[in-house]
Amino acid sequence: MKKYSIKDIARLSGVSVATVSRVINNNGRFSEETRKKVLSVIEETNYKINYSAKSLRMNKSFTIGILVPDIKNYFFSDLVQKIEEILFEQGYTTIICNTARNAEKEQAYLQILQAKGVDGLIIISGVEAFSMNAASSEKKIPYICIDREPQDKSKTIFISSNHYQGAEAATESLIASGAKNLAIALYNRMSSASRSRLSGFEETLKKHQLGFDAEKNSLRISSDDTINQELDNFLKNNPTVDGFFSTNDTLAMKLNSRLKKIGKNVPQDIKMIGFDDTPYGEYSSPTLSSVRQNTQQLAQKTVESLLKLMDSSTTLGETILIPVELIVRESSSRI
Amino acid sequence: MKKYSIKDIARLSGVSVATVSRVINNNGRFSEETRKKVLSVIEETNYKINYSAKSLRMNKSFTIGILVPDIKNYFFSDLVQKIEEILFEQGYTTIICNTARNAEKEQAYLQILQAKGVDGLIIISGVEAFSMNAASSEKKIPYICIDREPQDKSKTIFISSNHYQGAEAATESLIASGAKNLAIALYNRMSSASRSRLSGFEETLKKHQLGFDAEKNSLRISSDDTINQELDNFLKNNPTVDGFFSTNDTLAMKLNSRLKKIGKNVPQDIKMIGFDDTPYGEYSSPTLSSVRQNTQQLAQKTVESLLKLMDSSTTLGETILIPVELIVRESSSRI
Repeated sequence: MKKYSIKDIARLSGVSVATVSRVINNNGRFSEETRKKVLSVIEETNYKINYSAKSLRMNKSFTIGILVPDIKNYFFSDLVQKIEEILFEQGYTTIICNTARNAEKEQAYLQILQAKGVDGLIIISGVEAFSMNAASSEKKIPYICIDREPQDKSKTIFISSNHYQGAEAATESLIASGAKNLAIALYNRMSSASRSRLSGFEETLKKHQLGFDAEKNSLRISSDDTINQELDNFLKNNPTVDGFFSTNDTLAMKLNSRLKKIGKNVPQDIKMIGFDDTPYGEYSSPTLSSVRQNTQQLAQKTVESLLKLMDSSTTLGETILIPVELIVRESSSRI
Repeated sequence: MKKYSIKDIARLSGVSVATVSRVINNNGRFSEETRKKVLSVIEETNYKINYSAKSLRMNKSFTIGILVPDIKNYFFSDLVQKIEEILFEQGYTTIICNTARNAEKEQAYLQILQAKGVDGLIIISGVEAFSMNAASSEKKIPYICIDREPQDKSKTIFISSNHYQGAEAATESLIASGAKNLAIALYNRMSSASRSRLSGFEETLKKHQLGFDAEKNSLRISSDDTINQELDNFLKNNPTVDGFFSTNDTLAMKLNSRLKKIGKNVPQDIKMIGFDDTPYGEYSSPTLSSVRQNTQQLAQKTVESLLKLMDSSTTLGETILIPVELIVRESSSRI
């Protein structure tokens, strides 16, 4: 009697090896028709399902885990949704865990995802310098870090927008449209992304011999509840400020709203450029200039890299930067 | 020799039964200190871990699955985040699956969540009438349906905002602020929520002897790409319209933006009230009136009901409606 392999079953059923695996494990996507076909071929060939750990193909759950710091943030939810779509097309389902920028939760969810047997992890960390502590388990799960730089880049692939380039483009554009006294608006809570944006802003000012003074050129926000007060204080100390580069759109819109209330016109008195190009910026008044991150390309590169990593067909330690694009609208236009 | 129960282990370790269970299953949250303490008590008492199916406490994964139709939608992401927070406080971790309003994905993710051994499910379905087909598996997992009414309410608890009341309040407010020719703006893709909103709008018009004519009193949107064109056509056929009740804020902001472009002022010419009270409405110009859903109460009721259902300490078939609140801002103010 011929001994059949999973490859034979796939060939005889007219489906891929991955699909046969999913049918056997009753895990993942396949139609009722496919299930019947595969099971009847298995019966005909008397194929013995090999559940041993050595059976690599069988040992997959076709599930990927994603850690996201804040699904209410448009950039993150957009990115995660696109990753899910691409993974689903590739036959993988995606489990999303929201960590609320909380280190304890992040580690708890890493443990959960490992316990649930995901094949790979995509980590958008919410903590300052992410480290895969939970990987103390027996099985090392391949993981990709996106947007937030991990402590040790040698154990992963790091994929991010080119935040520095975005800050540079925004700052150049503010200067070109006539602003002379620029400030960056950013949260006290820093990430590798906001550090890169700050650095792009600072270097561009210096390049134009405008200098950078933290007091004069940066508006630090401690929380969403104190934005108005912190903006008012900043304007009192820096009455000549005529351009803001805000590290995200929501903050930019909140600043615009406050400026309007205290009688400052955007863009006539003060110009504003945000980051992320959320859809609301296009419908606000004035419409909001913003740096658009290419979430489609970020998602594609992430899935590609993770699948290669799971296949062991790539090397660790790579950093991939995705270009961004400045969208100029009313809020930063030359008057 | 005394035979110890899991309750004894919990008492001797100074932690809850749930925590002992999590340590034993190495699943969920506990500190390294707790783990050491519990394991040492287990060793001292020679407690035998009972893995049998009858051991209800042991048989829990302390993981809850959530299906969400669109995490990019602010209402959904806000609600899911709040549910996650409350569940985490109760010792449960949450696995989120994004179904993209796709029936096939919804069923695939239900299978995955069951295969991952979640203790309970929270379902925000994206399809017209949700049915738990995937529950054909041996183990029946308790589930709560929120926002979208399931086909068969007798097998679950249905929790939703009072969409009818919200539509009624918005319509009354538009009439009170002077609008006489009202229209509801809504997507062709209908859910039980949008049907309730339409019905609340229609009944309120009738109550005021204004009548309801689908051609005259409803602007149907087929997709986000055709909003401007569909609005323009509607205005051509109904030039006297002076008030819109939009079934969500994003649509309301898109309509406002188009109205401004074609020279119609909000609220002077046309008044606008949205739904969901997304934070962007407050920062748009004019600021947007909107019906606020109480996501905190929705989240609390959902978790409460699910935990009771998992405990079998409640009955199925209940419907819980959470009141909503109209927030009036510039876009619908009397001029």
